[in-house]
Amino acid sequence: MPRTYSDRATQVIARCREIATCTEVPGETTRLFLTSSMRKVHGLLRGWMEAASMMVDVDAIGNLHGLWPGVTPGSPRLLIGSHLDTVPNAGAFDGILGVVLGLAVIEELQGRHLPYAIEVVGFSEEEGVRFHKPFLGSLSLVGRLDPETLALTDRDGISITKAIQSFGLDPSQLSTAMISDAFAYLEFHIEQGPVLESEDLSLGVVEALVGQTRMRFTFTGQSNHAGTTPMRLRHDAMAAAADWIVAVEDHAGSREGLVATVGKVEASPGAGNVIAGRVVASLDVRHINDAVRQHAVAAMTQVAEVAAAKRGVHVTAQLLLEQPAVPLNPHLTTMLQRATAQAGIRSRVMASGAGHDAMILAPVIPSAMLFLRSPGGLSHHPNETVQTQDVEAALHTAMEFLVQLRDDRSILKDAHA
Amino acid sequence: MPRTYSDRATQVIARCREIATCTEVPGETTRLFLTSSMRKVHGLLRGWMEAASMMVDVDAIGNLHGLWPGVTPGSPRLLIGSHLDTVPNAGAFDGILGVVLGLAVIEELQGRHLPYAIEVVGFSEEEGVRFHKPFLGSLSLVGRLDPETLALTDRDGISITKAIQSFGLDPSQLSTAMISDAFAYLEFHIEQGPVLESEDLSLGVVEALVGQTRMRFTFTGQSNHAGTTPMRLRHDAMAAAADWIVAVEDHAGSREGLVATVGKVEASPGAGNVIAGRVVASLDVRHINDAVRQHAVAAMTQVAEVAAAKRGVHVTAQLLLEQPAVPLNPHLTTMLQRATAQAGIRSRVMASGAGHDAMILAPVIPSAMLFLRSPGGLSHHPNETVQTQDVEAALHTAMEFLVQLRDDRSILKDAHA
Repeated sequence: MPRTYSDRATQVIARCREIATCTEVPGETTRLFLTSSMRKVHGLLRGWMEAASMMVDVDAIGNLHGLWPGVTPGSPRLLIGSHLDTVPNAGAFDGILGVVLGLAVIEELQGRHLPYAIEVVGFSEEEGVRFHKPFLGSLSLVGRLDPETLALTDRDGISITKAIQSFGLDPSQLSTAMISDAFAYLEFHIEQGPVLESEDLSLGVVEALVGQTRMRFTFTGQSNHAGTTPMRLRHDAMAAAADWIVAVEDHAGSREGLVATVGKVEASPGAGNVIAGRVVASLDVRHINDAVRQHAVAAMTQVAEVAAAKRGVHVTAQLLLEQPAVPLNPHLTTMLQRATAQAGIRSRVMASGAGHDAMILAPVIPSAMLFLRSPGGLSHHPNETVQTQDVEAALHTAMEFLVQLRDDRSILKDAHA
Repeated sequence: MPRTYSDRATQVIARCREIATCTEVPGETTRLFLTSSMRKVHGLLRGWMEAASMMVDVDAIGNLHGLWPGVTPGSPRLLIGSHLDTVPNAGAFDGILGVVLGLAVIEELQGRHLPYAIEVVGFSEEEGVRFHKPFLGSLSLVGRLDPETLALTDRDGISITKAIQSFGLDPSQLSTAMISDAFAYLEFHIEQGPVLESEDLSLGVVEALVGQTRMRFTFTGQSNHAGTTPMRLRHDAMAAAADWIVAVEDHAGSREGLVATVGKVEASPGAGNVIAGRVVASLDVRHINDAVRQHAVAAMTQVAEVAAAKRGVHVTAQLLLEQPAVPLNPHLTTMLQRATAQAGIRSRVMASGAGHDAMILAPVIPSAMLFLRSPGGLSHHPNETVQTQDVEAALHTAMEFLVQLRDDRSILKDAHA
């Protein structure tokens, strides 16, 4: 293998930018599940993959697969992938980078075959934009797409079933999208956060995807005249909510790795000269350890009650989502760490604060995940970028990882069993 | 004069409820400036006033005047009044109670004339609903209606000038609505707040209408992913705003008579899983002493800067309104206090946290104002009420006030001068 990956890294970035021109909205990058812009992406990837002698296929949910066979027919498969779809007005790297990097890995093999096959997967759907339901691609790959999901409709009233048919695929074949003989999954993804940049690191080895609680807090006080109601006779829902928001921030800041966010706040009636009688506020709490998260949620709920009671305000809390943390495979994660070291790259182990396809695959297929630094912590934004040196580092790490997988008898033995 | 006013008080309440049926929206009380429902109110009041031998007139802005002459022609005038219009879906007492009580005062005189005339005034507009400009009636009475105001249009595109004409009045006669020979103004009004009720008092003697500052604060941080952005790397505009809101409440609570309200809060982008990058919040600060209010505003602005800076958030403050306090006439206020005592009524001296017609008249005509307890602190609401015993107390106080005015040589001498 060559010692430098800079030309390939430059090509990876150029390909991502070329794919970013496949869009439903001219002038920006907006690419939804099973749309004509997605077909163009399939065309580009198929062309590059076939040029690299890969066998290309599209499954019934629209996932694109490019297979690089192992030395023997029926070799167990390493999957490398991420998603092809985007949020509205997206950047050029979220998702697609992990697919294009997978292809680059095959190209770097320069025709060599390994004791295992490598299948590069481009998941058709992860962001959940078109049908308000994320992970349609990876859920299908592990056979966990709920059949009822197929009846969901987009804003034009088109169901998922109908969208599959319109794309020229066969919904009755969905079960064949499932892969049962993969021994490992590797996902590259931009960090979508500022941690690596703040520590001047190219790469982060993800050990787990954090668990998440989403709640809705409703503070009910008494709407009243801002001029005629003395402070001591108020039941100000906004003051109670504000007291709670400060306490939420404070609690999260005092526990390593804990994040908590109140991002949506609606005060009613919402007039400058009227005391708010009602405030509805969101709470999003995440941590790699479910017990820490649950303890934080309990503490934040209690603080809301104290802040409300102090003002004669009533508060209710509604649970909207409770998602446990998803650990990635410890063995693969250690190998990935070792690979970064062997590539001479400084990296760190970290949690992913966002969901990724790896979160869906990990409970079924041993999974590992590598983050690339996000300049400015920026993602889901047209200015989202990735640095050439970091792509080079990721590619170098991947090549070292392939060598370790080849030499690790236990993993391949398990896979054959 | 009779010792008990309970029958008259019952009649006052019944008349207010009858007037509440004059509405533009069936099933509720919504009565705007120069509408057909206002014409019905004029009809009811004119009937009652003429039955009491008063001389009734409507001026060019639609204020209704009912004159009870003094013992000699050209006697100086005491004005008693309040407004005839309402907010949408209003209660039955805000404004109109002060007019109906004025009429009841004349009726309680039972034909007697005083050394001064009494003119009961129903102001045509105070709430500012139809043209988004309040106090049109009282401003005209003191000759301070800005001529440019007449071009304002309502939601149907009708100007004030046109509305005056459609009501059968003559806009060219607006200057004649000005009264220059009144020696005093007395306004009865429901408190619209909870203070009297909380102290188990029927009446409050208003010594001043508080000054008011209205501002808009804009906190600008960095919108970011709620999962991938560690607490220490955030620039959370909502947390900064919340910190400030709690400090505003705390500061106001520590100064007697100071009120401060953050009633409108808008967080952007306003998603539960996104850190708020921008929060726009209102601030409303009121106090009877302008220096105390200005000091509070300065302190609250400084606290916003500290709360923002702590989080790497930028804050700007925009001044929307700066309205100095309006003191009422100290001599009349003392007389009104004495009148409540002579009527055997427990009362207190207080500030008005809301604006009233007295605020417009006071700089020109010596003014006094009497608050009646608001059960539940409720106003601008269909459930707004007033207790018979409190109306009785107000009426008794008014009759004692008339006696004092009659006996106070200085006031009448000033008026003749």
